[in-house]
Amino acid sequence: MEILQNDLLLRAARGEQVERIPVWVMRQAGRILPEYRAVREKAGSFIQLATNPELAAEVTLQPVNILGVDAAIIFSDILVVPEAMGLPYIMEEKSGPVFPEVIKTMADVDKLRISNPEVDLKYVIDAIKIVKHELNGRVPLIGFAGAPFTLLCYMIEGRGSKTFSKAKKYLYTEPELSHALLQKITDSTIAYLKAQIAAGANLVQVFDSWAGILSPEQYRIYSLPYIAQICDAITEVPVTIFAKGAFFAREEMGKLNCETIGLDWNMDIAESRKLIGNSKTLQGNLDPCVLYGTFNEIKNQTRSMMQQFGNQRYIANLGHGVYPDTDPDKVRCFIDTVKEG
Amino acid sequence: MEILQNDLLLRAARGEQVERIPVWVMRQAGRILPEYRAVREKAGSFIQLATNPELAAEVTLQPVNILGVDAAIIFSDILVVPEAMGLPYIMEEKSGPVFPEVIKTMADVDKLRISNPEVDLKYVIDAIKIVKHELNGRVPLIGFAGAPFTLLCYMIEGRGSKTFSKAKKYLYTEPELSHALLQKITDSTIAYLKAQIAAGANLVQVFDSWAGILSPEQYRIYSLPYIAQICDAITEVPVTIFAKGAFFAREEMGKLNCETIGLDWNMDIAESRKLIGNSKTLQGNLDPCVLYGTFNEIKNQTRSMMQQFGNQRYIANLGHGVYPDTDPDKVRCFIDTVKEG
Repeated sequence: MEILQNDLLLRAARGEQVERIPVWVMRQAGRILPEYRAVREKAGSFIQLATNPELAAEVTLQPVNILGVDAAIIFSDILVVPEAMGLPYIMEEKSGPVFPEVIKTMADVDKLRISNPEVDLKYVIDAIKIVKHELNGRVPLIGFAGAPFTLLCYMIEGRGSKTFSKAKKYLYTEPELSHALLQKITDSTIAYLKAQIAAGANLVQVFDSWAGILSPEQYRIYSLPYIAQICDAITEVPVTIFAKGAFFAREEMGKLNCETIGLDWNMDIAESRKLIGNSKTLQGNLDPCVLYGTFNEIKNQTRSMMQQFGNQRYIANLGHGVYPDTDPDKVRCFIDTVKEG
Repeated sequence: MEILQNDLLLRAARGEQVERIPVWVMRQAGRILPEYRAVREKAGSFIQLATNPELAAEVTLQPVNILGVDAAIIFSDILVVPEAMGLPYIMEEKSGPVFPEVIKTMADVDKLRISNPEVDLKYVIDAIKIVKHELNGRVPLIGFAGAPFTLLCYMIEGRGSKTFSKAKKYLYTEPELSHALLQKITDSTIAYLKAQIAAGANLVQVFDSWAGILSPEQYRIYSLPYIAQICDAITEVPVTIFAKGAFFAREEMGKLNCETIGLDWNMDIAESRKLIGNSKTLQGNLDPCVLYGTFNEIKNQTRSMMQQFGNQRYIANLGHGVYPDTDPDKVRCFIDTVKEG
C-alpha cells in the first residue's frame, strides 16, 4: 500500500474530509513553462516527446516542482489510443493532429485492434513508472484517456474541426458502424486505464472534449453509455469525468459510477451542484482567460469560485486547459490562492 | 402599409395565432444550392458577391424560389459592420475571414467611426430594395447583424478561433477599451438595422455566434447589456436574438425587449421554454447534422421537434447554419415536413 505525503486530491475525490482544497491545472504538463519548451526542443517534436518515457516523465514532474500543484498528470495525448488501435496520427505544426487514414467503412472498424497497452502503449506505462519513482509519494499521479465519442470524432473526421460535422454525419447515417467503433475504443480505453493504474496512476480522468457538439439525445446514445462502461469497469481508483460543453447531461452524469465531475466555465456552480447532487466531487472551473488578468483579479476570481464550490467535495482547477501564452507566475498565483484557502 | 401574401413568420414572432408553423433555414442563402455556386463563381469572390446588390439579391431569392421557405434573409456577412466602421476584412479561401488590422489600443477604438449605413453599407441596403421588389410581398424579408460581443471577437482576434482567447484577454485586461468598443459597435449596429428596416426588412435577427465562449458572469457584463440596447432601440419590427451556446443566459434572454429567441440544438426544448417563459416566440433547433440522415429520419426528427415546441409561438429552423455539403433535397424534406404540419 502506497503512502502519499499529500493525498488531498484523492481524499477530496472520495468525498473524505480535507483540511484545504486541492488544486491542479489541466494541461499543466507542457505548454506554459519555459522548462517544458526546453525539453520539447530537445525531443524534436511533440510526438517524439510523448513517446520518450524519460522526457515525458521529466515534463510531467515540472509543474509539481515548479508550480507546487497537488497532483501530477502524465504528459501524453488522448490520440495515443487510436494509434494503439492501428490508426496512427501525425502532428502538424499549424493544424494540430491529423490522421492520414480515417475510418470510413465497417471493414475499417473491423481492422482496428483492441489495443494491448502493455505493448502498444508501453512508452506511457514506462513514463508513469519513472514519474512514480521520481515523485516518491509526494503527490498523487493522474492518468487519463479521451472519451470514446471524442476519439471517434478524430478517427472519422481526421483532424480538429469546429463542428466535426463529418464525424457526426456517421452517427446519423451509420449508427451500427458508430456503435461498433465506440465499443472497440471503449474496450481499448478500459484496458489502457487499467494499465495506467497498475503502473501507479492514483486517479484517472476521462476527457470528453467534444461532448458539446452533440444534442442531448445524441449524447445519451453515443457518449454517455460508453463513459458509463468505463466508470463501471474502473474500480481500483477514483474516476473523474470531464465532458466539456455537456451542460445538458449534468443530471445524468450525477448518476455515473464515478467520483468526480469536471465543470467548464460556462456551467454555473450552484446549478451544477443541484443537478449533479451531493454524492460527487466537483472539479473546475475558472475561465482560463482569468489568468490573463492582474494578480488581484486572479485572486478575487479564484476566491469567489472557491466560496461558491465550498471547501469539501471540491478540487480546484480551470474550466479547460491553460492557454499556452499564460504567464507561469499567473498560474502560480491561482494555485497559491487556492492553497491559502 | 405592405401587404404580405405569407406573413406566418411575422405573426409567429409577434405571438399571433398561425394556421401552421413557419419555417426558414439559417444560411439558406448560399452554401448549399448549385444555383448559388453558379452566381458565386460569376461574382469572383465571396466579398465581390456580398458587395454586388444585384447578385446578392439574386442569391437571397433563391431559397424562396427553390426551397419554398417562409422568409428570405438578406445575403450578407456579420463582418460588414466592422468594415463600415473602418476595419476592413478579407476572405481567405482556407481560414475564412481575416482582419489585416486589429484593435489593440484605445486609440484604435477612437479611430473607428459610427458607421453611416446609407453610405458605408449602401450595397446591403440596395440589395434589400431589389429583393423587396422581386419578392413583391410573397414572404417577409429578414435583416440581420452580428451581436456586439461577437464582432468584438473578430475585431480583436483578427480571425476565427476555437477559444478567441486573445479577444477574451481584453475583457479581463482592458475592460474600459472593451466597453468603448462594444458601445461603438452597438451604435453602428442599431443604425444599420434601422436602415435595413427602412429599406424593407420585416424582422431582424442578431447573431451572437460566439456567446458560448463566455462565462455566465462575463456574458452578463460584455454581451447582454449591448444586445438589450439593440432590442430597446428596434421598435419598428420584431427582433430575434440567437446566442449560440448561451444556454446559461436563457432566463435573462426571456426578459429582453425582443420577440423571438433562437435555440441551438444543445438546448432542451421544454427546459428552454420554462426558462425563457411564454412571452417569447422560440426558433430552432434541429441539429444541422440530422440533414445528413435518411429522408425518413429527417421527417421523424422534424416531427418530434415540432411536437416538443408546439404549433404556436414557434418558428421552425435548424439550431445553427446549414452545413455546406448538405443535399438540397434533404433541406427541402425538412421544410416540407414542417409545412405538412
